[in-house]
Amino acid sequence: MAKKQLVVGIDIGGTNTVFGFVDREGNILAEDRIKTAHYEKIEEYVAALYEKIMVTQLKIKDENEIIGFGIGAPMGNINKGTIEYAAGLPWKGIIPIADLFKRYTSLPVVVTNDANAAAVGEMIYGGARKMKNFVVITLGTGLGSGFVIDGKLVYGHDGFAGELGHTAIRPGPSNRECGCGRKGCLETYVSATGLKRTLLKVMADSIQPSELRKFSFDELDAELIHEAAKRGDDLAKRAFEHTGRMLGFKLADVVAHTNPEAIFLFGGLALAKELIFEPAKEFMEENLLHIYKGKVKLLPSELSTQNAAVLGASSLIWSIKEL
Amino acid sequence: MAKKQLVVGIDIGGTNTVFGFVDREGNILAEDRIKTAHYEKIEEYVAALYEKIMVTQLKIKDENEIIGFGIGAPMGNINKGTIEYAAGLPWKGIIPIADLFKRYTSLPVVVTNDANAAAVGEMIYGGARKMKNFVVITLGTGLGSGFVIDGKLVYGHDGFAGELGHTAIRPGPSNRECGCGRKGCLETYVSATGLKRTLLKVMADSIQPSELRKFSFDELDAELIHEAAKRGDDLAKRAFEHTGRMLGFKLADVVAHTNPEAIFLFGGLALAKELIFEPAKEFMEENLLHIYKGKVKLLPSELSTQNAAVLGASSLIWSIKEL
Repeated sequence: MAKKQLVVGIDIGGTNTVFGFVDREGNILAEDRIKTAHYEKIEEYVAALYEKIMVTQLKIKDENEIIGFGIGAPMGNINKGTIEYAAGLPWKGIIPIADLFKRYTSLPVVVTNDANAAAVGEMIYGGARKMKNFVVITLGTGLGSGFVIDGKLVYGHDGFAGELGHTAIRPGPSNRECGCGRKGCLETYVSATGLKRTLLKVMADSIQPSELRKFSFDELDAELIHEAAKRGDDLAKRAFEHTGRMLGFKLADVVAHTNPEAIFLFGGLALAKELIFEPAKEFMEENLLHIYKGKVKLLPSELSTQNAAVLGASSLIWSIKEL
Repeated sequence: MAKKQLVVGIDIGGTNTVFGFVDREGNILAEDRIKTAHYEKIEEYVAALYEKIMVTQLKIKDENEIIGFGIGAPMGNINKGTIEYAAGLPWKGIIPIADLFKRYTSLPVVVTNDANAAAVGEMIYGGARKMKNFVVITLGTGLGSGFVIDGKLVYGHDGFAGELGHTAIRPGPSNRECGCGRKGCLETYVSATGLKRTLLKVMADSIQPSELRKFSFDELDAELIHEAAKRGDDLAKRAFEHTGRMLGFKLADVVAHTNPEAIFLFGGLALAKELIFEPAKEFMEENLLHIYKGKVKLLPSELSTQNAAVLGASSLIWSIKEL
């Protein structure tokens, strides 16, 4: 019997690096992790990671062969195989992560950011399997996006396409400071953190009681606000409403730029379902030119949040293999 | 000697339809026109146009063969070969213009809108000849845009990608009514008409004298305002400044979506050179995430305004031939 082909999907986060052995159907046959933050030197990190991957491969029962390594990382640059100035990782400057991996293997090594990986994952394993033109928006601590046009991930000239989180909500001064050093970026409104900030603004402006008034900013998270909104808390509902509207406003821009078949929402905030989808859809439609109205689907991602980063990273290799 | 291959580029405007016989280098060997508005029935229009094209071909001295027809039209849909609900043309609804042409010819017939045609024209004959990722913004009565990614024009799922003119400048209510029925679209600010509207606003707010105060709205045009600005008229300069800033603000979105190598400005307003380029560049850079800063070129189109529509339309055929 032929050996089963597997891809190693690697998700590099600030705390942990999680990896898994993934087959073409998106099953994870084995997985493990190492502590990213333990390795000050990138060379030591790659050596430890590669060794752990080789050890983990031995645990898979079926005969198998690895056909490539897909890496998802913040500020991963797919053109150059680098991680560039990622604030949350221990290594500074431009890290040639693909080249460092290639000291150990002659197999393909592909690097990209989490949102691009999520987009390719949606195309290979998820709801975009039959689509050629779509966009995935990842809603976590920040807001990321990956564009697929004509069946291919859009890299852009410098490898940094799809930074929708850092488009501004309006021209001129805005109040909300962004981690990128500017003000008024979309992710200061539309993200788990953005939702918290909006809730504080709503609580400041309103005199209505709310079960959330007893929590500090640090204690609050998207799930608490989601639970309160489900129980009918008016301020929590208003915070979601505003978040969805800001998202919908900028999704209309996405449609006018690249006219996708669908836009998928992925990540924590997307789990709030109609609380975020309804205002987003409504405000998107309101801001669409007539030729687009009613045509673009706004859908929840079909990747499970739990494994999505590893699946997305692994999908990069299947996608280049199938081109 | 082999026959010279030529493409017929056709520019359908509300008043005239201009066509030309174009070689691979962008030379127009013969051209002529018919009156669009004379033909109430689309079938009669296509018959008259095709006949005129055939008659004009006889005037070309060199032996030649036509290899295809490229059509640029408002609301031209490249996926379907149709013109859909174009407000400025005599025919209503969805016009299957490519199919109507194919009654007379078995050669390829490609249809798209003016801005997409300008983008392909820039790639085939103009300043984007070596580029794979760029955007062309056409600044005329309105604002159009064409995206090229990975060497290919972006159509989008419904064939309507690149309607940047109808993205909104801010969320929520805006004063400026747009011809599309909504408010606050980019082209209500950034276009020849947008410039006039901004000038009126500036004149309303200011008490400064201006040579332009003697002109009515109907009398004003972009050229008058441009001439006044060149002579140092402060209000005219302010109108250009604001127009450029609004453009730059939304160009930052273009960069964050698709990360192009360059953005080309084409059309009347682009001829105002630094009056529009300087504020656009400055405000674009101000609104860019650090990874993009200083990397994206903002350039004037290298297609001459006079022939660009015909060249752009013809370029569609060369681009499919060379894929």
